[in-house]
Amino acid sequence: MQTIHRLDCDDAQRIIEAAKKHAEAIGVPMCIAVMDESCHLIGFLRMDGGKIPSITMAIDKCFTATGTQKPTQALAEPSMPGGPVYGLTSAHGGRFVVIAGGLPILKNGQVIGGIGVSSGTPAQDLEVAQAGVHAFGAEGA
Amino acid sequence: MQTIHRLDCDDAQRIIEAAKKHAEAIGVPMCIAVMDESCHLIGFLRMDGGKIPSITMAIDKCFTATGTQKPTQALAEPSMPGGPVYGLTSAHGGRFVVIAGGLPILKNGQVIGGIGVSSGTPAQDLEVAQAGVHAFGAEGA
Amino acid sequence: MQTIHRLDCDDAQRIIEAAKKHAEAIGVPMCIAVMDESCHLIGFLRMDGGKIPSITMAIDKCFTATGTQKPTQALAEPSMPGGPVYGLTSAHGGRFVVIAGGLPILKNGQVIGGIGVSSGTPAQDLEVAQAGVHAFGAEGA
Amino acid sequence: MQTIHRLDCDDAQRIIEAAKKHAEAIGVPMCIAVMDESCHLIGFLRMDGGKIPSITMAIDKCFTATGTQKPTQALAEPSMPGGPVYGLTSAHGGRFVVIAGGLPILKNGQVIGGIGVSSGTPAQDLEVAQAGVHAFGAEGA
Repeated sequence: MQTIHRLDCDDAQRIIEAAKKHAEAIGVPMCIAVMDESCHLIGFLRMDGGKIPSITMAIDKCFTATGTQKPTQALAEPSMPGGPVYGLTSAHGGRFVVIAGGLPILKNGQVIGGIGVSSGTPAQDLEVAQAGVHAFGAEGA
Repeated sequence: MQTIHRLDCDDAQRIIEAAKKHAEAIGVPMCIAVMDESCHLIGFLRMDGGKIPSITMAIDKCFTATGTQKPTQALAEPSMPGGPVYGLTSAHGGRFVVIAGGLPILKNGQVIGGIGVSSGTPAQDLEVAQAGVHAFGAEGA
Repeated sequence: MQTIHRLDCDDAQRIIEAAKKHAEAIGVPMCIAVMDESCHLIGFLRMDGGKIPSITMAIDKCFTATGTQKPTQALAEPSMPGGPVYGLTSAHGGRFVVIAGGLPILKNGQVIGGIGVSSGTPAQDLEVAQAGVHAFGAEGA
Repeated sequence: MQTIHRLDCDDAQRIIEAAKKHAEAIGVPMCIAVMDESCHLIGFLRMDGGKIPSITMAIDKCFTATGTQKPTQALAEPSMPGGPVYGLTSAHGGRFVVIAGGLPILKNGQVIGGIGVSSGTPAQDLEVAQAGVHAFGAEGA
């Protein structure tokens, strides 16, 4: 039997609240998703004005970062034509998103969950995701 | 041009918080989803111990109630063999869920959103959904 | 943060081996799937002669039992027309299977994984699943 | 009438065991899938720590290698923009994976099955897949 550590519901709400606060500070309404270490959704919030396709994009960025244990943007270059994981973006039903805005959340070097943010520019999505991670006091990625 | 009224992000958080409080009171961890009048997710929360398939079930109950503008359980009888909407449960890729726990949220007779709850018995799911609706001061359904 | 217990890879192999042995004893080649508590596949085996659709059926029985924390056959009656969860069988993309052969696996009252078996009669599938669960020394369900 | 040769259940278990041993030797927990010549799953194993999206990736690499009768990475260049099978990676619902780690398994020049491995780097996935193939004494690809 394995013993696993994962984000709980309070953690997810705290992370989303911090990300939301940062999104308000920069004036960009966002979709924000938080998953546990098994890539299952714990919390989600779409701020007023958050874009419709960003619902899925935030969730899939979250899936990608949590599942691959890497920031989504770290997968962009390797998945380009000629790269070692070319084709990744269309694999798994298109759920892998390599645009900035998805981050795994680590504690003691272990992935315990992840966050995905979408609706702004990739740079804005990433800084909002980082605000969420930092509020939790977790190791950024 | 149309003018549309819909739940906002604060409403969704308030509704989810009230539903969560009721779920805690009855001791059943739940998955809770809130959508706007266009059937798009605004907020979601899985309490610690909420079941994995209930993530999708809560979202799909919410979709069903918001989209059909009816409590999910009101569709159970009409969708049975011999009923007028027989076959509904498997239509739309199986997204219509006719199990109790999904409610539209109305204001002045207009659907402005909906809530879906899953992880307990259908009766428990329904009362948690009702607690969410009532906290908003909306007309239950 | 939550602390979770789940089946490990050795557990899954032991469970599958025991189920396979029982299937051989009754002379029915089976498809056998084992998941962790988050409904993610750990191990799978199709014995020679195991039926092709049973690959998915075993996996989906496993998903159903693990996710709902109930033996699959316990869901058959409640999901019939007139039952409280009528429509369950077509929800979640049709992944809920209410035919005997899926069992959650519990330790100290907590679901730590599950098993799904398919290719024989439902009664045969169930006894092979039980053989798997018992070999692990877990609480049957 | 045709006579077909294919991997059996014992072969699949032997192949998976050898791949697992190699994965342990290099210290990378892997997801390992083995299919028969008809692209149907015989065996699957996720080692403790194997990544969640790698469940599907291992299965889809296995499907790709078995179905196209080519190592997955051999399809990377031809499927790039300008290549003769450009678009392959998104065809078939995204099931074709052209990342290293999928190998067909041949006997007397005939494909009798395949293996797919995922969770490490593509190079690690490939060497674990090769370890599986070699243990079977089959012709690598």
